[in-house]
Amino acid sequence: MASDATGAEAPDQVVVEEPLQIVVDGRAVAVTMRTPGHDDELALGFLLTEGVISSAAQVRKIDLESKQNHALVFLADEVEVDFSQLTRHVFSASSCGLCGKATIDAVANKLPPLESATVFSRDSLLAAPALLETCQSVFARTGGLHAAGIFGADGTTHVVREDIGRHNAVDKVLGYGLQRDLDLSQCFLLVSGRVSFEIMQKALAGGVPLVAAISAPSSLAVEFAAQSNQALVAFLRPPKFKVYAGRERIER
Amino acid sequence: MASDATGAEAPDQVVVEEPLQIVVDGRAVAVTMRTPGHDDELALGFLLTEGVISSAAQVRKIDLESKQNHALVFLADEVEVDFSQLTRHVFSASSCGLCGKATIDAVANKLPPLESATVFSRDSLLAAPALLETCQSVFARTGGLHAAGIFGADGTTHVVREDIGRHNAVDKVLGYGLQRDLDLSQCFLLVSGRVSFEIMQKALAGGVPLVAAISAPSSLAVEFAAQSNQALVAFLRPPKFKVYAGRERIER
Repeated sequence: MASDATGAEAPDQVVVEEPLQIVVDGRAVAVTMRTPGHDDELALGFLLTEGVISSAAQVRKIDLESKQNHALVFLADEVEVDFSQLTRHVFSASSCGLCGKATIDAVANKLPPLESATVFSRDSLLAAPALLETCQSVFARTGGLHAAGIFGADGTTHVVREDIGRHNAVDKVLGYGLQRDLDLSQCFLLVSGRVSFEIMQKALAGGVPLVAAISAPSSLAVEFAAQSNQALVAFLRPPKFKVYAGRERIER
Repeated sequence: MASDATGAEAPDQVVVEEPLQIVVDGRAVAVTMRTPGHDDELALGFLLTEGVISSAAQVRKIDLESKQNHALVFLADEVEVDFSQLTRHVFSASSCGLCGKATIDAVANKLPPLESATVFSRDSLLAAPALLETCQSVFARTGGLHAAGIFGADGTTHVVREDIGRHNAVDKVLGYGLQRDLDLSQCFLLVSGRVSFEIMQKALAGGVPLVAAISAPSSLAVEFAAQSNQALVAFLRPPKFKVYAGRERIER
């Protein structure tokens, strides 16, 4: 129930936010505040973008049933995890001082620039925002959930996911891609909001060569994209968009 | 430089995102990706909302000059910090399982509900969005920076800050309040976007009895507000708003 400015009460629906603890082989590695649903994809995407796994085959099982709000991940026997690497803030260990460049370099040491030369058509980019919106629930559009989608270079919509956290929405679609063995080097990622450094970093970890955003990019996202051989398109509002990096990946 | 959909190039301004490392008495406690500016307020607000300090007097000095993108915080001699407490995810230690209720309870153990009975006028709430927007730069409005503001119960605008991170914008205004010794129990916090659990938690740590948001609240934010004796107003879009908790704090 919520009441309005005059005090009148009416039923109201709010976005669900609940914690999810991700546990890898019995070890708790992260708690994230998320909108429940597609938790297996979220866990997979998180482990992919944190550099713990690089393929779905490395995960033997994800148990979502045994404990509420827990994703119990069991890795395949041959997979070894360096838990000390498991930190979002890979750059905090940088020894040469802390600046945008050091931050990018710290990530670059772990994730080399992309080699794929995939080119995307302007039409597939311009069509994506409407496809993203079609896949969002009305509630998500009005209630302000973040959305992320994976689209093929040919314009195919592979998946759209929503979450109260914008990083989670991205982890979910990347997790979906990993699960279905999508060739992400032939895809682009579209996010409903802004694109910051961490979003570019996640896309790179997933091997996605182009990130598009309905809203603005940050300075560090632009620098990171250029250094990683990723394209960055922002303010994607048909018939317009702006290209901040990787112009050569977009068909003239 | 950015290029548009036709390939034409034009100068373009993007939101600055840079890391800030917060160091307390020589110990690195956090790295946050933020928009530079008001870093002293950000550091103070962060330490307040993480429960490290409770007054500005506990901080002897904040040195922003010696190292780029570092806030070197020096505490007063008598202040003792339990660094093991220094985690955003206070709930991860919860032993009774992980759910919304456990999450709230874990915070409640550290931060008791508010006792203040401050009542806010409808007019001051309805005036705040325009005041927030007036204080934002045009660039921030168009480029999608997050904004947060502290307003008095009488409608006074105390401070508005912007940041690429919505948590940072809130930390900055709370840090400003601490620095100026504002009586935050007589103030409300307005955020430009949505209000999630962590925003309510930060407001509680600062002793702010009402949080208003231009956009939507999350389920956990609503539950947390009710349990903390905080009011939560969302979709504050004059002449309308919705009250999700603490109706009694708003003048009828």
